[in-house]
Amino acid sequence: MSNSPQVISIDNLSEFCVGALRNCGVGETDSRVTAEILTTTDAWGVFTHGTKALRGYLRRLRSGGLAPRGVPSVATEGPGWALVDGDSSLGMVTSTYAMDLAVGKARRTGLGYVGVRNSCHFGAAGGYAAQAARSGFIGLAMANDIPSVASPGSRGAVTGSNPLAYAVPAGRHRPLMLDMSIATVAGGKVYAARERGEPIPATWLIDEQGRPTDDPQAYPEHSTLTPAAGHKGFGLALLTETLAGALTGAAMTARVGSWLAGDPSAPTRHGAAFLALDVAAIGPDLPGRIESLIDEIHAAPRAAGVDRLYVPGEKEWENLGRSLRDGIALPPDVVASLAEAAAIGGMDLERYLKHP
Amino acid sequence: MSNSPQVISIDNLSEFCVGALRNCGVGETDSRVTAEILTTTDAWGVFTHGTKALRGYLRRLRSGGLAPRGVPSVATEGPGWALVDGDSSLGMVTSTYAMDLAVGKARRTGLGYVGVRNSCHFGAAGGYAAQAARSGFIGLAMANDIPSVASPGSRGAVTGSNPLAYAVPAGRHRPLMLDMSIATVAGGKVYAARERGEPIPATWLIDEQGRPTDDPQAYPEHSTLTPAAGHKGFGLALLTETLAGALTGAAMTARVGSWLAGDPSAPTRHGAAFLALDVAAIGPDLPGRIESLIDEIHAAPRAAGVDRLYVPGEKEWENLGRSLRDGIALPPDVVASLAEAAAIGGMDLERYLKHP
Repeated sequence: MSNSPQVISIDNLSEFCVGALRNCGVGETDSRVTAEILTTTDAWGVFTHGTKALRGYLRRLRSGGLAPRGVPSVATEGPGWALVDGDSSLGMVTSTYAMDLAVGKARRTGLGYVGVRNSCHFGAAGGYAAQAARSGFIGLAMANDIPSVASPGSRGAVTGSNPLAYAVPAGRHRPLMLDMSIATVAGGKVYAARERGEPIPATWLIDEQGRPTDDPQAYPEHSTLTPAAGHKGFGLALLTETLAGALTGAAMTARVGSWLAGDPSAPTRHGAAFLALDVAAIGPDLPGRIESLIDEIHAAPRAAGVDRLYVPGEKEWENLGRSLRDGIALPPDVVASLAEAAAIGGMDLERYLKHP
Repeated sequence: MSNSPQVISIDNLSEFCVGALRNCGVGETDSRVTAEILTTTDAWGVFTHGTKALRGYLRRLRSGGLAPRGVPSVATEGPGWALVDGDSSLGMVTSTYAMDLAVGKARRTGLGYVGVRNSCHFGAAGGYAAQAARSGFIGLAMANDIPSVASPGSRGAVTGSNPLAYAVPAGRHRPLMLDMSIATVAGGKVYAARERGEPIPATWLIDEQGRPTDDPQAYPEHSTLTPAAGHKGFGLALLTETLAGALTGAAMTARVGSWLAGDPSAPTRHGAAFLALDVAAIGPDLPGRIESLIDEIHAAPRAAGVDRLYVPGEKEWENLGRSLRDGIALPPDVVASLAEAAAIGGMDLERYLKHP
């Protein structure tokens, strides 16, 4: 496998994913939903959370930890909220369903909360937030995960890296969109550095004694991610754990299964949470006000050597435009993972890697 | 004025605040609501956001920028939400009213959002989150403010320090409670260092060229707070600006008035946002699950030299217990500010400083 990026069109990458998922027993609609989320994430340039994860999902679909024909459904609900049982279906399937439901609740009451249990890794939280923004709603998405992040003063992992994302309609601009891990960096960034054989900044991890380390090789067995901004990242982790885990009945902390390293025949029982607010009902001026805010930030004075100020999501939307035009330049670690996915899913990767 | 802390009972501090507010024309109920929030904040040990701010509020009440007899009211509403016009009343009065309303909405639909415009500085966001938790609800509180925090790459202030707080019922434990500024530190911490003549870490501020500085003296005229964890803090600032500013019709960024340094006769037009989720309806097991989570964190292995792991809010609740028992040890900068408040509010501070 070459070390230069491999260019692939979004359509080809998506068809590869759909084919592999179908071959593992997933229905047509669910395969397409999942493929679209994963390829869009790559097209945004967020390669840690895109099709690189397909391999792990396929392994679980083959082994029974993910139910290929699982059907998420409402377990309990009220006027503005619902709790969804994901039925161990793919995290993308459950999460897309849940955000649709949250938007529907918000249409009726102004805002909706949908919590999910019996889900799995849902990839990039930003995709579900963007889903709400496409309908003109403010969207928030979050999830819990296995412990991988220290708390201030701890020696090992205490919380998950618990992603938190939002998206906001922004008039003539693309939506504001933040997708952050509450860790200093997402674990995926450490895995990527490990696979590429590169050292990492000493602020990303602590070792087994609680000391800073710049060695990604020991991750995650013998080192732990640090929380972003110390007690602030830790505090946000417990907020996402509250809304995605404690409120939903999902597994929490060490009871969550590792989607990547855990027994692929056992469901991971991840939790997730989705919030939507109806902009048209509450504040119809919002998109214009956000548009002006973005214009104001773009025009703000810059530090020496800085060409341009970005708002959250702006780089991702520009990457998406470039990917639509020129194809996605997949890093080698993603291509290697897709090769394994092809083996599991009975697909011929080379055929799809030929950019049309 | 001595440099040692001045001990005062919570009741005495509260009565001092109530007296000063009444003397500036605020009604009995609103004075008590405001005094309770400010003194509780001091009792938590969060001296940057407690009664130290009273001086500034009294000046605005005397000059007309705050309406002593302002009455917040619902401007528009739906089943799960409301927008409140604060009528330029004290931020504590408006915010307490708004969180009550959010809890009421949540009782009916499961969750409530209340946005506020025409408010002022609301002090510590945690107080309103805790207000919801006292009723058994998950509470979130946030606000916007004048630009005081840089974005990644900017040379000056782009967003407010936009506080974000939550509180969660936790069974036999006191509620989880995080109250964070999206800046690396809150501006109040820089003011306090400036008043105490102490240098600050070079990560807190950038100078007018966008370079790190450890000099608090130039703040805020010639230096700017950095965002916590870079793009993450900046992204959270825009989330709070969305929910507290853009959605509510409040003033945003440079149009917000400075409650401390601005014209005291002009309303500041701050915005704020409050969210409540009904735990009993959505997830009655939540308090027990959070209680177990806290127990688990307390029992987690600690780094060398660390005696104890804390969860968000735990230090504040312990400080409150100590303050109830022993009185509040007010730092000198707070006492100096209260002396000015006494002059504006026609009060005899010395009489209240005698701990009963």
